[in-house]
Amino acid sequence: MTTPFDPEAFRRALHRAADVVADYLETVGDRPVLPNVEPGDLLSQLPAEAPEDAESFDALIDDFQRLVVPGVTHWNHPGFLAYFSSNGSEPGILGELLAAGLSVNAMLWHTSPAATELEIRACDWLRRLLGLPDAFQGHVNDTASVSTFLALAAARDTATDRDIRHEGLSGGPHLVVYCSDQTHSSIDKAVVALGLGLHQLRKIETDDEFRMRPDRLLAALTDDRAAGRLPIAVVASVGTTSTTSVDPVAEIADLCDREKVWLHVDAAWAGSAAVCPEERSLFAGWERGDSIVVNPHKWMATPMDCSVLFVRDPDLLRAAFSLVPEYLETREDAHPAKIDLMDLGVQLGRRFRALKLWFVMRAFGAAGLREKIRRHLRWGRRLAQRVDDHPDFELAAPAPWSVVCLRALLPDEPPAREDEFNRRVLEAVNRRGDVFLSHTKLQQRYVIRVAVSNLRTEEDRVDLAWQQIREEAERLRTDSDWNRPNEGS
Amino acid sequence: MTTPFDPEAFRRALHRAADVVADYLETVGDRPVLPNVEPGDLLSQLPAEAPEDAESFDALIDDFQRLVVPGVTHWNHPGFLAYFSSNGSEPGILGELLAAGLSVNAMLWHTSPAATELEIRACDWLRRLLGLPDAFQGHVNDTASVSTFLALAAARDTATDRDIRHEGLSGGPHLVVYCSDQTHSSIDKAVVALGLGLHQLRKIETDDEFRMRPDRLLAALTDDRAAGRLPIAVVASVGTTSTTSVDPVAEIADLCDREKVWLHVDAAWAGSAAVCPEERSLFAGWERGDSIVVNPHKWMATPMDCSVLFVRDPDLLRAAFSLVPEYLETREDAHPAKIDLMDLGVQLGRRFRALKLWFVMRAFGAAGLREKIRRHLRWGRRLAQRVDDHPDFELAAPAPWSVVCLRALLPDEPPAREDEFNRRVLEAVNRRGDVFLSHTKLQQRYVIRVAVSNLRTEEDRVDLAWQQIREEAERLRTDSDWNRPNEGS
Repeated sequence: MTTPFDPEAFRRALHRAADVVADYLETVGDRPVLPNVEPGDLLSQLPAEAPEDAESFDALIDDFQRLVVPGVTHWNHPGFLAYFSSNGSEPGILGELLAAGLSVNAMLWHTSPAATELEIRACDWLRRLLGLPDAFQGHVNDTASVSTFLALAAARDTATDRDIRHEGLSGGPHLVVYCSDQTHSSIDKAVVALGLGLHQLRKIETDDEFRMRPDRLLAALTDDRAAGRLPIAVVASVGTTSTTSVDPVAEIADLCDREKVWLHVDAAWAGSAAVCPEERSLFAGWERGDSIVVNPHKWMATPMDCSVLFVRDPDLLRAAFSLVPEYLETREDAHPAKIDLMDLGVQLGRRFRALKLWFVMRAFGAAGLREKIRRHLRWGRRLAQRVDDHPDFELAAPAPWSVVCLRALLPDEPPAREDEFNRRVLEAVNRRGDVFLSHTKLQQRYVIRVAVSNLRTEEDRVDLAWQQIREEAERLRTDSDWNRPNEGS
Repeated sequence: MTTPFDPEAFRRALHRAADVVADYLETVGDRPVLPNVEPGDLLSQLPAEAPEDAESFDALIDDFQRLVVPGVTHWNHPGFLAYFSSNGSEPGILGELLAAGLSVNAMLWHTSPAATELEIRACDWLRRLLGLPDAFQGHVNDTASVSTFLALAAARDTATDRDIRHEGLSGGPHLVVYCSDQTHSSIDKAVVALGLGLHQLRKIETDDEFRMRPDRLLAALTDDRAAGRLPIAVVASVGTTSTTSVDPVAEIADLCDREKVWLHVDAAWAGSAAVCPEERSLFAGWERGDSIVVNPHKWMATPMDCSVLFVRDPDLLRAAFSLVPEYLETREDAHPAKIDLMDLGVQLGRRFRALKLWFVMRAFGAAGLREKIRRHLRWGRRLAQRVDDHPDFELAAPAPWSVVCLRALLPDEPPAREDEFNRRVLEAVNRRGDVFLSHTKLQQRYVIRVAVSNLRTEEDRVDLAWQQIREEAERLRTDSDWNRPNEGS
C-alpha cells in the first residue's frame, strides 16, 4: 500500500497543520474580521494552471498561510457578529480531521455501518436535547437549503392522489406553498427547484413584530382553494433570518391540521436554543410540525456543514427519493436495524458529518451547550435593552433571542437620509476591524443587525460593537461632509 | 476570546488526532476491508442520550478508535475495489483540516473572498488539466447528484418560452429527459426532484457494449415530439456506473444540436482520466456538452465531498437559482471579478471545498495525477485481459478503463444457478477481508465488478483479487453442498 507521499512527511505536515489551526484559533481575534482585499486580489496571485511537478506539503501550508488566511473573512473571529455565525469549535474540528482520515461514504449501511448508526444516534441525542418527541427521526444534510427542499419535496409528492413521482407536475393543479414575508430565501429556491414556480409561493404578511399573520394565511389558503389551486405546505419560522422573529407556530399548526397541509418548521438557527428548557415557550407548537430543520452548524458550535432534518415519517422521504439500483443492493436489506440514508434525499454521496456533531455534544455536554446559549441570550437581550434605552437609537424589531436589529435616529431628516446615515455608520464600524456586523431592510428601511451567536464572542466584544456604533454615529453627526447641503442622500 | 476548551488541551488533542490519522493510513491495509459487524452493533453500544457534563478530547478520540474505526468500511484500504472509491489522499486530508479550522462559508464573495477566488481558480486548473475549452466555467458542489440536478434545472428552465421559474410546470407540456438504461440513478432522482416525473425519463436502449444507441435516442425524441411532449435534455455518460461504458457523445452532441436539446455529460468518475492526453479519444464530443460533471472525489484523490460542475453559461444557472435577499446584498456587487457562488445553486451554505482540491492538484502535480491514472488503467486493462483469456471466466462487458465486470462460467448449468454461483464467489472473496468487490446486474445476469481506481491500491492487490476469485470459484465448484442436487439455486 503506497501513495506518492512519504508517510513520515505526511505525519509531519499533519502536525504542522495542527499547530497552524491551533495558532490560528488562539490569535484570530488579533486580526481584522474582514480581510483587506478587493475582488481579484487572490486570483491575480495564483498561476493560471496546475504545476507539472509535485510540490511539497510545506509549500501548500506556506501558501495557505501566505495567500489564503489573509484573504478570508474570519468566521471564527470573536468579533464576527454578522449573519448567523458558523463556528469551528475545537471538538468539531477534531471530528472533521478524523472523518477526513476515514473518508467513508455513508450512503448505504453497508458502505459504512458505524457512520450510519452514529448518524442515527447523534440525531436522536440532538432530538432529546431539544425536547422534541420520539416521533421525529433525524438525518444530517449539508445545509438547511437542502433539508427544506427535501421536506417540501415530500409535501409535494404526498399532497394529492396523483403519483407525482412518476407523472410529474405537468397536467396537475398548481401546488402552493406558504411562508411569511420574512422567511429565508431557501424557501424560494426550493419552490423554484421543485418546479412549483414562485407564483405559487405566498409570502404572507407579518404583524408589527414580523410574525406571520394566521388570519392572512387562512385567507390566502381559502383564495387559492377557491381558484382551484392546491395548498400543500406552510413553512413556519422559529427565528427568521432578518429579525429572528417567531411565527405563531401553534396557531399555524391548528390551521395546517384543519387544512390537511404539511407543516415545515424552519428553526435552522434558533432551534439550538431549545436545549434551554426555559426558552421552550418560544417554540410552542413546533413539535406539531411534519418536519423541522435545525442546523447545528449555526448555533451549536459544529463546523459547516451540518443541518439536521427531523421528519415524522421518513417513509414519505423514501417514497420521494428511494431508488436502489442493482449495484447498490446489499444482503442486509431485510434487517430492521439497517437504514440506507441515501434513500432519504437527493445526494448519493454522504460525508461522515455525524462524527463532528457527536464530538460537539460530548465535549460540551448538555450543560455546556445550555450555558453557551444562555450567555448569548443574556448578552443579546442586554444589548437590545441598551439600544431601547438610548435616545439616539431605536430597536428596529423585537429581539426575542440574541440578534439585535437597530437603527440610529435622525428625527429631523428624511427617511432616505437616515438610511444612508445608518449604512455609513455600519461601514465605518466594519472598517475598524474589531467587529463585523451585517444589515438588513425592514419595511424598506435600512437596519444594522448585531448577531450574538458566535462561540468565540465574549461579553466585552458585544459591548465594543455597541460602543463603536455609538462612536461612529457621533462622529458622522458632526462630520462636515455629511452635513454639507445636498450631500449624503 | 475564549471557548470552554483549554487551548493547550486542544492543541494536544489535534496532535493526537494527527497521529491517529497517520497511523490509520499506514496500517489500514492490515484490517479486513469490511468490518465484522451486524446492523445495530454500534447503536447498542451508544448511550441513549448526550452526556450532561463535558467529556475530554481524549475520551472522544478513545471512543473513535474503540467504537467507530472497527465499524467502518475502509474506503482508504488498498483492497477497496468496490463501487467507485473515494480516497482521502494526504494533501486532501491536510486541506480538510485547515478548512475546518477556518470554517468559512463561501456563499458570497464578501463572506470569504479567498475561498471564492480559490474555487474559481481551482476549477479552472482542473478544466485545463482535463483539456476542456475555456468556454467552461466550473464550481464545486458536494456530489454529482447535486451537480446533475442543477444542470437539469437549468435545462428545464431554459427549454421553453414559459417562465418556469415563476409559473412552475403545472399547465405546461411534459418535459422529457433522455439517458441510457445504464445511467446513474442520480438522473432518476433529479427528474423526480425537479417535478418532471419518472414517466418523462426515457432510458434509451444500449448496444451490446452498453452504449446509448443514437438511433433509439432519435426515435424516442421523435415520438415524444409527435405526442406533444417537449425534449429538454440528454444525459450522456462517459463511464457509466456498472460497466464504465462510454456513450457515443459526439453523435449524441450532433443530435442535441439539431434538436436544440441541452446536453449534460456525466463523467463523474471517468472524467479524471482526461488528465491523460492519450485517453482523450474516449471523451470525444464531451467538450460539446452544455454541462459536464467530474468528481475529483472519485478518481482524483480528493476526499469526499468534491464534485465539479462545468457549464458553458453560468448565467443559466443564475437565472434558475439567483435570489439575493437584502441581508445578503453587499457593496462589491458591481465589481466584475466578484462572483457570489451561492447564485449558482440551491445551497446557500458552501464549505471551503476548493482548498483540498487545490492541495491535491499541487501535491500530485499534473505529472503525478497522470501517473496515478495510468497505473490504474494499466492494471485494470491487464486484469480484463486475464479474465478474457481464462477458460472458466468471461468478461461481462468491455473494460474501457480500469473497471472489470466478470463472471465465472458454468456452461452446463442454467443461468440462475450460474448467477447464484457468482454471488457466492463474491461473498466468499469479500469474507476473506483482503479485498472488497461489488456486483452489478447486466442483462438480468449477476456480475462481479472489480474497480481499480483507489489511490492506495497496488498491482499486487489487483492480482490478489483475481487469485481469490479463481480460488473461491474453484473451491465452490468442488463443494459438496453446492453440488448436491436441488441445492443452491
